[in-house]
Order: sequence, then structure tokens, then C-alpha cells
Amino acid sequence: MKFEVTAQDANARRGRLTTRRGVIETPVFMPVGTAGTVKGVDPKELAESGYGIVLGNTYHLMLRPGVEVVAAHGGLHGFMGWEGSILTDSGGYQVFSLAPLRKLTDDGVIFQSHIDGSRYELTPEKAVEIQEALGADIMMVLDECPPHDAGESHHREACRRTTRWAERCLEARTGAGGALFGIVQGGVSRDLRLEHLETIAEMPFEGLALGGLSVGEGPQRMAEIVSAVGPQMPSTRPRYLMGVGLPQDIIRAVSGGMDMFDCVVPTRNARNGQLFTRDGPIQIRHAAHTKDTNPVEPGCTCPACTRFSRAYLRHLYLSNEILGARLNTLHNLHFYARLLEDIRRAIDSGGYAAWASRTLQRLEGQVISKKV
Amino acid sequence: MKFEVTAQDANARRGRLTTRRGVIETPVFMPVGTAGTVKGVDPKELAESGYGIVLGNTYHLMLRPGVEVVAAHGGLHGFMGWEGSILTDSGGYQVFSLAPLRKLTDDGVIFQSHIDGSRYELTPEKAVEIQEALGADIMMVLDECPPHDAGESHHREACRRTTRWAERCLEARTGAGGALFGIVQGGVSRDLRLEHLETIAEMPFEGLALGGLSVGEGPQRMAEIVSAVGPQMPSTRPRYLMGVGLPQDIIRAVSGGMDMFDCVVPTRNARNGQLFTRDGPIQIRHAAHTKDTNPVEPGCTCPACTRFSRAYLRHLYLSNEILGARLNTLHNLHFYARLLEDIRRAIDSGGYAAWASRTLQRLEGQVISKKV
Repeated sequence: MKFEVTAQDANARRGRLTTRRGVIETPVFMPVGTAGTVKGVDPKELAESGYGIVLGNTYHLMLRPGVEVVAAHGGLHGFMGWEGSILTDSGGYQVFSLAPLRKLTDDGVIFQSHIDGSRYELTPEKAVEIQEALGADIMMVLDECPPHDAGESHHREACRRTTRWAERCLEARTGAGGALFGIVQGGVSRDLRLEHLETIAEMPFEGLALGGLSVGEGPQRMAEIVSAVGPQMPSTRPRYLMGVGLPQDIIRAVSGGMDMFDCVVPTRNARNGQLFTRDGPIQIRHAAHTKDTNPVEPGCTCPACTRFSRAYLRHLYLSNEILGARLNTLHNLHFYARLLEDIRRAIDSGGYAAWASRTLQRLEGQVISKKV
Repeated sequence: MKFEVTAQDANARRGRLTTRRGVIETPVFMPVGTAGTVKGVDPKELAESGYGIVLGNTYHLMLRPGVEVVAAHGGLHGFMGWEGSILTDSGGYQVFSLAPLRKLTDDGVIFQSHIDGSRYELTPEKAVEIQEALGADIMMVLDECPPHDAGESHHREACRRTTRWAERCLEARTGAGGALFGIVQGGVSRDLRLEHLETIAEMPFEGLALGGLSVGEGPQRMAEIVSAVGPQMPSTRPRYLMGVGLPQDIIRAVSGGMDMFDCVVPTRNARNGQLFTRDGPIQIRHAAHTKDTNPVEPGCTCPACTRFSRAYLRHLYLSNEILGARLNTLHNLHFYARLLEDIRRAIDSGGYAAWASRTLQRLEGQVISKKV
């Protein structure tokens, strides 16, 4: 993996990430392909929407269909029919948020599947082994992600454990796999974050991530941490803000120097009928759209806007039709792809701060719920 | 609308149906677009799969979104983004099978919506008015479709009422609408069917349909009626067997001289994980497919078979993923499109009886459930 910063505008930066699968312009947004599919769309449509990298969830894939099934297809690319790059998480975050029972030790974590209750173990070594078997182009270290409101000592302990696990992940890689990114924890404590960053930054990771944000601490506190920590992250390596986020979160994080993002918001909200537009999001189920023959957003070049009306999408939503979820998802993914294009263009032109301020002002009045 | 028979092979026939939207080679299968969408697929994909005509359900559309919403889009073509031909049913069949309460008189039928209990009325005049507003290229008369095991007198009464309603539908059309097809009822009584056919055939319909079959009477009795009645239907007009069916039902009905078919089987069964192949259907959820990296059917050119494995489709099915329903649907629609191509080719070559016999023998051993 190669990474070069191609332009800088205050702390915001443009970059070019080259994986073994292709070239990705940053800042970049990665749609989430939880169970080996970005929900609602065909991988061809992802590429057509301008995406070059997606995220795969190790936790979900190890539980179902199981790593050996994916490996029988030569990895996740072959399994899900995606030729672009894939970043996989380590599974740790989902173990902490989804598994009904878990036992955490310094060695790793033993947990029950939320699907059938069967027992699994995830250690740093196992996390790397699985991600290599999945054929990830970028792998993430196993980390401990405490609840945002865990106490200082819990967060400090999670940093210590994450550091130890990071070392073991580095030792575990065979070299045959993709790049490996380290993760910085530390909750919403600026000092703890910077301290942990210093430790992780010294290790030979190809990229660094901020984990444990966008987990309930609120957009303001998240923005504070990102603006304090982001610019201190090593400038020569990509900086990945995990699990973020809404358009305004991404815009702010780019101001803080972050390069990579992933989130279920565009896809999940689409399935729940929330469609992003430049003038703020709309709820397609609202009665106002009943007879509206206009597209969701005039000028949008997505398959939904170029061929179907708000009234039709509302009808599909109310009728619980598959095509509705699909068209809504394509629209939101187009919106995010265009947002990131706009961000990159603004940095290239050296006017990011002004662009961000204008755009945030327009978005700020809008109520966008992460969980619709 | 124009129709010409282009080849005849015993009772089986090849034809060419020209609607105001395009040319359709018969025998033809029409996918069912219940609620303004063929469930699971984009209209573009339908056209790419070789389909030129789909069926729209008047009952579903009049309840939701309502005829005026569709009409605001210039009709169903504009609403659902479909440029091919559309045949609409009259809504009568669904009133009898879905509406929780209904009151039937000679004037028409008053019923409650199965969605919200609101009250609607359907008369022959109203059925034509709605289908014209939907912009149907082919409209169906309002008919009464009794349960298959209703008594002889009930069936006779339904024929009488269907005849009277057929006359009123003919009177009601404005001329601006599409073609109008009459419907022959009569249950599984050969005599009653032939008697009713004689009456309906005398009316100036552009095509004739057999209604009230494939409603529980069983494939054997259906085949008997079709083989007795089909060849007696006027040879210069298209013959439409409503709601049929499984591959073997269609093959038999073509032997009886039928030209047009529609059924939810390929789409509904796909969503339930039943995939048609030349070697019989498979259930994609079966454990046998867990690690199977082969396509559903080698050689099939559908988007599922050319790009994804059985193991992947099984995984999508078990994970209840939208992409699974979509790929399965595309596969089954490809299977049906290819089946009808094979049928047309066999008639053209003058070897339909032999082809049908071979194909039925292969299929006969298979257990294919209509309702999975």
C-alpha cells in the first residue's frame, strides 16, 4: 500500500491511496458491506456510483457464512463479486456491541454469536488470520472499544490492552495479507487520546485510525477530539475515522485532517426512507410527496432521480417493495459520493474552510437523525 | 393492437402481437408487477432479460397509491419507468381472493381494502375507466371468478354475470384506451366453458382469455380444460391463460393453443429461495450449497449465474439480504424467458410435440411447489 498527500489546505488534506486493487482519492467514504453485500445494491452499482473501496465486517462474516466459505471463493472479493478495494474491521467493535455474552481477557475475547448463540474466540492473532483469509486489502488491529461513558480508568485500561493487541497483530501478519492499520482509543479524553496516539504512531502501521468515536458521545465532543487529535496524527500515513458519519461530521473531520470514513448512515437511512439532498434530508413517506412527480433531487444523476418520482419512491416505501430500498440506497450513496467529490475539490482549490463553513451552515439547521 | 399467427404446429402456434408500445413474439410470458413494480427488479433489468410486456394489478394500484397518483405520471408506464407494453387485469380476481369483505351484485362489487379497510366499488364501467387511466395497452374485462369447487349453478351464474359485464365493458371504453380482452369462465366443466366461450367469442374483443384456472383445481384438470377449450378459441385472436403457471403448465397449455401467460411463480418462488434450472428447481437454502462455488446453473447468462456462486446466494438468502431476492428473481425471470424462447423455437421448427414430451418427462419427476 502506498499513500501520498497531494494537497494541503490548513489541516484538511487531499491524498492518494494505492492498494493492490487500485487507486483511491482521499478524503474517501467507504460504504459498509456488513454481510458480504452493501445492503440493497449490486457491487456493479457501487462502482458506477464512483466507489473504489468498501468495508467488510469480520464479525458478521466469521459468524455467517464462516471464513472458510469466503476463503473457498478466494476471499471476499470473489465471494461478493467486488473488484475494488476492501477494508475489513477486526470484529472487535461488533463483539462489544452485538454479542449477547462475552468474556474479555488480555488474551482476547470469547463471545457468543448473536445469530445462534454458538461460541467464538477472537484474539489479535485470530483477527489478523481471518482478515488475511478474507483477502482484505486493508486490515484493522483488534482493539477494545469501551462505551463512551466508561470511566477514565476503563478507557486507560482499554488503551493499554489495545496497544498490546496492536503489537501482537503486527507480529501475527504473514506478509501475504494487505496493509494493517493501528487504532487509537481513549474515549473523549484529549490527553488520553494524544498519549495513546503517541504509542500507536511509533508502531509500523501503514495507517492509523481513531476508534471509539461516534458511539454516543455526541457530534460536538467527537468534533473536539478529532480537531485536537487528527492534526497530530502522522502526516505521511492515512488517517481513518471509524464509523463516521453524517455529512456534517465528515466535513468537520476533514477540517481536522482525517482522510477516510465509513458509516451505515447512507444505506441504513435509505432503507428507512430518509433521503439526503443538498437542501437537507427528506422523509420519503411524508404525505407531501404523495403526488409529487419531481425527482428526489433535481439534477442528481443517480438511477432513482433520473428515472423515478418522489411519488413512486413513496409508494414503493409504503408498499415495502425491494426496489424502493434499492433506489433509495443508490440515491444516498450517490449523495455521499458527490459530497466527497465536493470536499476533494474544495481542498484542491484551497478554499476548504470557506466551503465547509457555507455547507455546514446550510446543513446545521437540518435535523438528521443517525438512527431513523 | 394487431395479432398474426406466424406458424402453427398441431394446436401450438407462434404469433406476433403488436401493441402501441411494441412487438411481442408469442407464446409469451408476462412477469407480474403487482404494486407498480415486478418485485425485486428494476424495469431496465426486465427489458435486459428479454421481456416486452408485464402485467399490472388494477386492484393493488387502485388501493395504493390510487389511480389519480398513477395518472399524474401519465399512467403506469411513467409511474413505474417501464417503456414496454402493459396488460392490466380488471381487479376482479383480487377482489374475490384478497378483499376481506365484499358485496357482489349484478351492478358490480363493493369491497373493503385489505390494506386499510376503506370501501371501494368496482363495476364494469369503473374497471375500464381505471385501466384506461392507468394507460394499459391491453385491458381485461371485469369478471366473476368463483372458487374452483363452487357448484355448477354458481359457475353458470358467474358466466352469465361475466357475459353481462363483458358487454358493459365494451360499451364503456372510450376508444382512447388500449385493447380489451374478454374472459371465459366456467370452472372445470368442459360444457360450460365451451358454452361461455361461444358467447364471449361473438363479442368484438381483441383477444380472449381463460380465467378461473390455476385456482386450486390441480394441474391435471386445468390441462384437460385447456386442451378441450383452447383449440376452440378464435384462431385469429390472441389466447391468454390467466395466472399460469409452472413451466410444465405453460408447456401443456401451449400444446392446447394458448399464446399468453402470467404468473407470480418465477418472482415469488425466487424470493423464497426456489431457483429454476433445466435439471429441476433447487432450494438455495439447502446445506448442500454451503460451500458450492458453482453458479446456480452453468451456462445461464443471468446476472446471478455469471457473477455469483450458489454459496453466495445461499448466504444472502439466509441473511435476508435484498441483493439475494433480486439476484434470485433475475435468475428465475431469465429461466422463464429462455423457456419461452425454447417453446417458440420448437414451434417454429415444427417439432413442438416431441420437444414438449421430452421436456415434460424431464420436469415431471421434479417436485415444484407453486407456493413455496
